[in-house]
Amino acid sequence: MDLYSGHINKLIEELSALPGIGSKSAQRLAFHLINMSQEKVNRLANVMIEAKANVRYCKECYTLTDKEICPVCANAKRNHKLIMVVENTRDLAAYEKTGRYEGIYHVLHGAISPMLGIGPGDIKLKELMERLQEDVEEVIIATNSSLEGETTAMYISKLIKPTGIRVTRIASGVPVGGDLEYIDEVTLLRALEGRVEL
Amino acid sequence: MDLYSGHINKLIEELSALPGIGSKSAQRLAFHLINMSQEKVNRLANVMIEAKANVRYCKECYTLTDKEICPVCANAKRNHKLIMVVENTRDLAAYEKTGRYEGIYHVLHGAISPMLGIGPGDIKLKELMERLQEDVEEVIIATNSSLEGETTAMYISKLIKPTGIRVTRIASGVPVGGDLEYIDEVTLLRALEGRVEL
Repeated sequence: MDLYSGHINKLIEELSALPGIGSKSAQRLAFHLINMSQEKVNRLANVMIEAKANVRYCKECYTLTDKEICPVCANAKRNHKLIMVVENTRDLAAYEKTGRYEGIYHVLHGAISPMLGIGPGDIKLKELMERLQEDVEEVIIATNSSLEGETTAMYISKLIKPTGIRVTRIASGVPVGGDLEYIDEVTLLRALEGRVEL
Repeated sequence: MDLYSGHINKLIEELSALPGIGSKSAQRLAFHLINMSQEKVNRLANVMIEAKANVRYCKECYTLTDKEICPVCANAKRNHKLIMVVENTRDLAAYEKTGRYEGIYHVLHGAISPMLGIGPGDIKLKELMERLQEDVEEVIIATNSSLEGETTAMYISKLIKPTGIRVTRIASGVPVGGDLEYIDEVTLLRALEGRVEL
C-alpha cells in the first residue's frame, strides 16, 4: 500500500522484520526516527554498525563480547571449575545480575529443537565437551525450562555423565512472589515434585 | 552495570531510548542485530539515515512525504474543498486505508496539551488557517478522542466558525465489534448522546 512515501515504507518494512516489532510498532518507530535529529539518527545507525562489527564470541565461554576473553572468563577470582551452561548471553546476564554466582559460564547459542531442525551440532556443544577436558568439578545446566531447554539439558547430562563430572540442573518451581492461582499446572507439579524439607 | 561489552551496552542504551522499547526488548533487539549479517545491519542503518534525510513535510497538508507535494494533495481526483484535520501522519494513513475518504488532509503534528505545555502555536494550526483562505467547503476534525484531541477540536472549531466554513467532528461511540461490557463509561455515554434514527 502506498500510504507513506517510499523512504518511510522501506524503513517500516525493515523495522517490522525485527523480533517483537509488529507493523504498528514499526510505524510508530519509523515516525519517531524521522522526527529525531539527523545527528541522533546517524549516531544510532553507527552504534548498530559498530556493535555488529566489533562484537564476537569469547574464546572460552562463547558469550558475546568485545574482547578475546570475556570479563567473566578473564576474572581469576571466579571459580573456573564450575561451569553454568546457558542458552544465550542474555541468560548469562540474568545470572550475573544476581551477583551471587561465583563460577563461569558456557553459552550454547540455542537449544536442541527437532521441531525447528536444530540438532546438537548446531549449538556450542562440541565446544563445551572440549572445555571439560580441563579441570572441571561441576556443570550446572541452566537452559530454559521449555521443551527445547529440557531436551537440551537431558542430552547434555547424558553426554557428561560418563566423564564422571558432576552434572546438576537449576530447580524449577513457583517463581518468588508468584501467585499459585495464576501459575500453570506443569509448574505447580514441578514445584510439588521438587519440594524440600523445612 | 558491566554485564555486556561496551558496544552491546551502548547499543542497548540507544535502542531503549526509542518509544515503546523497554530494557528487555532493547536487549533482545540488540542481540538480534548482532546476530544479523553485517550486510543486513548496514542496510537497516542506511535506510534509517536515508529516511531521515529525505522525508519532509508536504508543502500543502504537512504530512511526511518524499516529495514536495504528497500523493494525496497531488491527486486532482480528490475533493480539495474537503479537509480532514488529523494529529499525525499515522492517523492520515489510518483513514487512507479505509479507501473511502475522498477529500484531502491537514496534519497538525500534535495536539494542544496544557499539561505538556503544547499550545496552539506548537502545532500546524496557523498553516491550517492559511489554507482556509482558499476555496474550502468543510473541515472535518479527526483529532483523537483523548482530552488533548478534544481540546484541539474545540479550539479549531471556534477558530473556524467565524469564517462561515462548515466544521464537523468525526463521531465517537462504541467501536464496531466492541462488547458493551468492556467499554468505558465515557464512550458509552457518547454513544448514547450520538444515537441516530434507524
